[in-house]
Amino acid sequence: MELKNDLLVRAARGERTERTPVWLMRQAGRILPEYRAVRNSLSGFVELVQNPELAAEVTIQPVDILGVDAAIIFSDILVIPEAMGLPYEMVEKKGPWFPKTISSHDDLAKLKVADVPSDLGYVLEAIKVTKKELAGRVPLIGFAGAPWTIFCYMIEGQGSKTFSKARKMLYNEPVLSDQLLQMITDSTIAYLKAQIEAGANVVQLFDSWAGILSSAQYQQFSMKYIAQICDAIDEVPLTVFAKGAYFARPEMRHLNCRTIGLDWNMGISESRRLIGEGKTLQGNLDPCALYGSTAEIENATKKMLDAFGPEKHIANLGHGVYPDIDPEKVKIFVQTVKEYSSQMRSV
Amino acid sequence: MELKNDLLVRAARGERTERTPVWLMRQAGRILPEYRAVRNSLSGFVELVQNPELAAEVTIQPVDILGVDAAIIFSDILVIPEAMGLPYEMVEKKGPWFPKTISSHDDLAKLKVADVPSDLGYVLEAIKVTKKELAGRVPLIGFAGAPWTIFCYMIEGQGSKTFSKARKMLYNEPVLSDQLLQMITDSTIAYLKAQIEAGANVVQLFDSWAGILSSAQYQQFSMKYIAQICDAIDEVPLTVFAKGAYFARPEMRHLNCRTIGLDWNMGISESRRLIGEGKTLQGNLDPCALYGSTAEIENATKKMLDAFGPEKHIANLGHGVYPDIDPEKVKIFVQTVKEYSSQMRSV
Repeated sequence: MELKNDLLVRAARGERTERTPVWLMRQAGRILPEYRAVRNSLSGFVELVQNPELAAEVTIQPVDILGVDAAIIFSDILVIPEAMGLPYEMVEKKGPWFPKTISSHDDLAKLKVADVPSDLGYVLEAIKVTKKELAGRVPLIGFAGAPWTIFCYMIEGQGSKTFSKARKMLYNEPVLSDQLLQMITDSTIAYLKAQIEAGANVVQLFDSWAGILSSAQYQQFSMKYIAQICDAIDEVPLTVFAKGAYFARPEMRHLNCRTIGLDWNMGISESRRLIGEGKTLQGNLDPCALYGSTAEIENATKKMLDAFGPEKHIANLGHGVYPDIDPEKVKIFVQTVKEYSSQMRSV
Repeated sequence: MELKNDLLVRAARGERTERTPVWLMRQAGRILPEYRAVRNSLSGFVELVQNPELAAEVTIQPVDILGVDAAIIFSDILVIPEAMGLPYEMVEKKGPWFPKTISSHDDLAKLKVADVPSDLGYVLEAIKVTKKELAGRVPLIGFAGAPWTIFCYMIEGQGSKTFSKARKMLYNEPVLSDQLLQMITDSTIAYLKAQIEAGANVVQLFDSWAGILSSAQYQQFSMKYIAQICDAIDEVPLTVFAKGAYFARPEMRHLNCRTIGLDWNMGISESRRLIGEGKTLQGNLDPCALYGSTAEIENATKKMLDAFGPEKHIANLGHGVYPDIDPEKVKIFVQTVKEYSSQMRSV
């Protein structure tokens, strides 16, 4: 089905657009009362992720309610460890928790590369249902965690301030680390290809824990695998969002992907200079700016749009939208991007 | 009393030294069995902080056991909010917790600028006892949290991945935020001056949550107050360690302080270029490098020393030493700095 609004896809490809497309990381979920109503009808988060009809419903909610230019499939990056043999639970107010983790070659031997059609069929089904219900209104974004971030959870078993257990593994077991990262990478490539096959128009890699590695280790244990994924995915535009990896921006220039996501710490003009003119940039309003007044949000959004300029930009926050943000404030952000970026073109 | 080993003080002043001085953030504490023995003799962490004799004992342990070139007074950055009117507890395996927090002008009105001699006399006493027992063997480092980091805890009441409540305050209550930051700054200046008066040879500011602010907000709500502190302290060399504030390095060049601490993400030659030749740099081995083998630790340490060069460097990790690091590994790091940096001078 042809897309009626293909701004995001065209901006990702570096083409000129009438205005800047806008969406928000974590737009599908916790900020919307409509989401919480669906979520509360089930026993847990994982049940919602695994229910294609309801996952599609919450995926589309922000398109209807917030007016964003893309939907992103409601899911979690941790479906990959689960498909590889490590199931996860989502503990309310605490985050993910894995009953089993990887600490030895024996543990690794029990894992497998994900068999995507059978292990992750529920995500593919959710994408198909969403595409049908969206009926071409906006593009659908598929996603996965970057191998390093998935590795962190598989070693550590939960969130951590330092992920020192995962980083210790890099020092003490570099061979095991490489083997596990390669298995995650192979699983992720198959998973993203299946998402595209099911209908995803754009895909994004989230490297949430990029910022805890030194620059040299980031090259060796994260960028190397991200590059493999970028090289393998050529069906649709791919976005790499590596939170905190400011030091890797010069190397991101060489990734075989269309778009680089910026977090809110990363200076816009500096990032453009380091990453080059060849990429579209995505981001990067401080998520806390949405706590401000209407006028403050409008000003901050316009300032951001001016800094990125009218071309090769996809407007977003520099991090997932925070749970206690008023959806009305999100609408002001979305509306300001739409109006002001249109004006920027007509000047 | 004259210092027998004054390497740290001379390196901080930018003077030539026979070798590079070395110490570790969080060296006094959790990694040493000797510390845990003292800690377990008391009911809690706060009790240890408030006991001058025992605080002095654990302060000196790493000098005896690890051979570091400085002691850092055993204390916590959260003694300042306590002295201002917000007591804290240290919850095992969870971190700090404040029963009361600041969310309004009414809350602020109940706070006071710390009356250092009476509210923080126990720290000053611990410094005096430590100085006496050290008998000039090595310099003693005093410290405080940077105002922004202290503000985070006073608003949020505990650790947080995003500190979004504290950042929300900056957007919604900029006047209240400035007032609170100024009160913390005034308390901190008085506190550092008292530590110096009691015997601290060098002082350090820890801005642990620097990395969660955008560059513009970091200038406005953190660097502005750090600069006030730098201008006020001229008795001894001051070090500013702002973890994650890579974007602020160009401005750190202009701070009226002697030393800038680098975290393990910050590239050494890039940091030198951005910060300039006028400052001593401190850091920045990846704390996880100490999980490696003896040979790996030696190699990583030598590589770091080569990158900093022999002058204007104080060797340290890029973050506090992690709790599960073997003290024997720390000794390898310390010994390698001592031997290799001596060789670097004799070439």
